Amino acid sequence: MTQLIPEALRETIEDLGRLPGVGARTAERYGCFLLKSSPDISRKLSESLKDLHKKVKFCPKTFALIDADAEVSPIYEDETRDRGLVMIVEEPLDIIAIENTRNFSGMYHVLGGAISPLDGITPDELHIRELLDRIRDDGIKEIIIATGASIEGESTAIFLTNYIKEEFKEASPKITRLARGLPIGADLGYTDSMTLTHALEGRQTL
Amino acid sequence: MTQLIPEALRETIEDLGRLPGVGARTAERYGCFLLKSSPDISRKLSESLKDLHKKVKFCPKTFALIDADAEVSPIYEDETRDRGLVMIVEEPLDIIAIENTRNFSGMYHVLGGAISPLDGITPDELHIRELLDRIRDDGIKEIIIATGASIEGESTAIFLTNYIKEEFKEASPKITRLARGLPIGADLGYTDSMTLTHALEGRQTL
Repeated sequence: MTQLIPEALRETIEDLGRLPGVGARTAERYGCFLLKSSPDISRKLSESLKDLHKKVKFCPKTFALIDADAEVSPIYEDETRDRGLVMIVEEPLDIIAIENTRNFSGMYHVLGGAISPLDGITPDELHIRELLDRIRDDGIKEIIIATGASIEGESTAIFLTNYIKEEFKEASPKITRLARGLPIGADLGYTDSMTLTHALEGRQTL
Repeated sequence: MTQLIPEALRETIEDLGRLPGVGARTAERYGCFLLKSSPDISRKLSESLKDLHKKVKFCPKTFALIDADAEVSPIYEDETRDRGLVMIVEEPLDIIAIENTRNFSGMYHVLGGAISPLDGITPDELHIRELLDRIRDDGIKEIIIATGASIEGESTAIFLTNYIKEEFKEASPKITRLARGLPIGADLGYTDSMTLTHALEGRQTL
């Protein structure tokens, strides 16, 4: 079949197929779309990708994504925000979701994933050591664990809590976890029983 | 929110978001994946995209995608194949699906889409004029219309049939259409009524 697809297109399809969740069919669709579209679209994307890693880096304190010429994340530098309150998230873009609520004025710490033995992600691969340093250096008073509500997110939250409490004993910062419960608009009949269990356990007095 | 995402990443996300079916969330996911992965992956994709349009072109006869330095599609040049039998497809990659069946030894003609007034695709934008030339020049005896089983594909098939018959009158090649019916593995209870209607109308004597 090989000679049916021109070499250059085959390579593009192969490279696009490395994106997460992109299978062979989707990659082919992307490749053909690019060929049918103006060459400017491919060229522009090519340019953006060329120096992506040179122009973006991880903040050495919070592990948020920042411009390569910045020292630390702009949020970490912002003196109007509370350095004693730190939210732990899995991925850099989780920060944007929280910032969009306009209801949080603390700092962030990006773990870089969640503990997942099946995917080979052990605690050593997450930025936990650096979190302990920050608890010490920045005088962190409260940690809000905002890992995902998945099995991996839950395990990571439990692991982190135990680890920090053991490390700091009585001097440990307060540790909280985002509430689990009914999402807005949920219909009880369609809600899974784990979510309902959490909603019941976390019920609040009116 | 703008300063939360580094400029270079924001641009990459914007450019990835131009791919078909890729929304903002998916583009963000792709962008972050690339940053977390080895720079080689971005660099390789960047390279492939850079000269994509220079290295690939459309065959001037069949409108299949071919290497830029080839004259016509390798299938069109293949003398063991039947030039009098031509299958009409919407997109270049449809050819691969048919070739994979190993049951077709004719030629192809790529329309470049299907007629779709809603998307602004009129017959003038498809390679119909060039098909008429081929019918004359290559002495085409049978045309198999293999446009999709969508409304657009159906309309295109009907339009093409009428157009060719009107143009060539008694000298018109035989025109057939791929059978519609139950796909392999189909469960009657889950099959839509349009498909069942086609299966009934196209029923075959045993």
